[in-house]
Amino acid sequence: MAIRYPKGSLQYVNSSSKRKTKRPIEYGHRGMKFEEMINQSNDYYLNRHIAVIHKKPTPIQIVNVDYPKRSAAKITEAYFTQASTTDYNGVVHHCYIDFEAKETKNKTSFPLSNFHQHQIDHMAACTEQGGICFVLLWFSSLNRCFYLDFAILNDYWQHQETRRKSIPLNVIEQEGVECPIGIAPVIDYIQPVLKQIEKQNNR
Amino acid sequence: MAIRYPKGSLQYVNSSSKRKTKRPIEYGHRGMKFEEMINQSNDYYLNRHIAVIHKKPTPIQIVNVDYPKRSAAKITEAYFTQASTTDYNGVVHHCYIDFEAKETKNKTSFPLSNFHQHQIDHMAACTEQGGICFVLLWFSSLNRCFYLDFAILNDYWQHQETRRKSIPLNVIEQEGVECPIGIAPVIDYIQPVLKQIEKQNNR
Repeated sequence: MAIRYPKGSLQYVNSSSKRKTKRPIEYGHRGMKFEEMINQSNDYYLNRHIAVIHKKPTPIQIVNVDYPKRSAAKITEAYFTQASTTDYNGVVHHCYIDFEAKETKNKTSFPLSNFHQHQIDHMAACTEQGGICFVLLWFSSLNRCFYLDFAILNDYWQHQETRRKSIPLNVIEQEGVECPIGIAPVIDYIQPVLKQIEKQNNR
Repeated sequence: MAIRYPKGSLQYVNSSSKRKTKRPIEYGHRGMKFEEMINQSNDYYLNRHIAVIHKKPTPIQIVNVDYPKRSAAKITEAYFTQASTTDYNGVVHHCYIDFEAKETKNKTSFPLSNFHQHQIDHMAACTEQGGICFVLLWFSSLNRCFYLDFAILNDYWQHQETRRKSIPLNVIEQEGVECPIGIAPVIDYIQPVLKQIEKQNNR
């Protein structure tokens, strides 16, 4: 049973006794997945000539393909393979941008286990070439999204054995930039990107 | 039967009467596919910290996945889908670069039918954002590879209905830059890219 509250928020009330876990309150994005929210934002930026950013397809190793007559080729055996890069890249205002988007159900910190060494390596290589690298962190239980520079993530990543294995929310609040959640774009993450570009250009 | 000629070139002589079509002479790359040649070149650029350029995975729509116990998830039904971008992008010297690689068996011109509207649209959008866009054209019968600015391709593309449906080799020779074919990198296409970046920075 769904009750509509003022401000357009939608809260689910459990009608079945089986479903005891609370479902998160859904705001503007109405239960959209994080990836979908970013893709829609990218479409918005593309259509408004603000930025050209795309999600890369999932890398797959194809083993078998059927070619039936008069219909499309059908892949009958394939496996997911490890990506060597991040999920998103593109160009904004003469700058290469590259980022990874991750989510957590945690409410007080973002676990580093969400990231992989190859993503860190790729962002380090892109940074070295002058690209703008960052992560979008989605706290699904809090409905909050943050832009965080790769430099901050990398600092925590490099010291995870001796320090802690997650980035505290208050650090993210301080060092990152919270992205407004809305309708168009769903997640407005381009402002901190443009600020970072400006900063880099002034160096 | 393979005969090794001086200069390391390898020419196949048909020993079977069935195989009547001539196989192209293989030089340094020894029968490597064009895509493979570019990927190896990208690896070279990455390892030498010259550029970070990757081929995007083939986009696929996954319909069915099996999750067998104790082994990797197996995709049992999937279809190839249309890409919305080009095959390659990356970052070089603070610049976003984006390109498509195509090959032809033709010896005198490069057919525009090798390209698709979405690739043209994507490169136009990236160019508008200040990215460096181009194509790598491989004449497989001639063993020659050219860098050609998107602006030239786009000019031919926009006028293909009233002018011609291919770009003559002599135009490509004049307006493009021939990329040396070697061992490391297999196709050295980064020089014309760097020149284009310099040109853009001086504007």
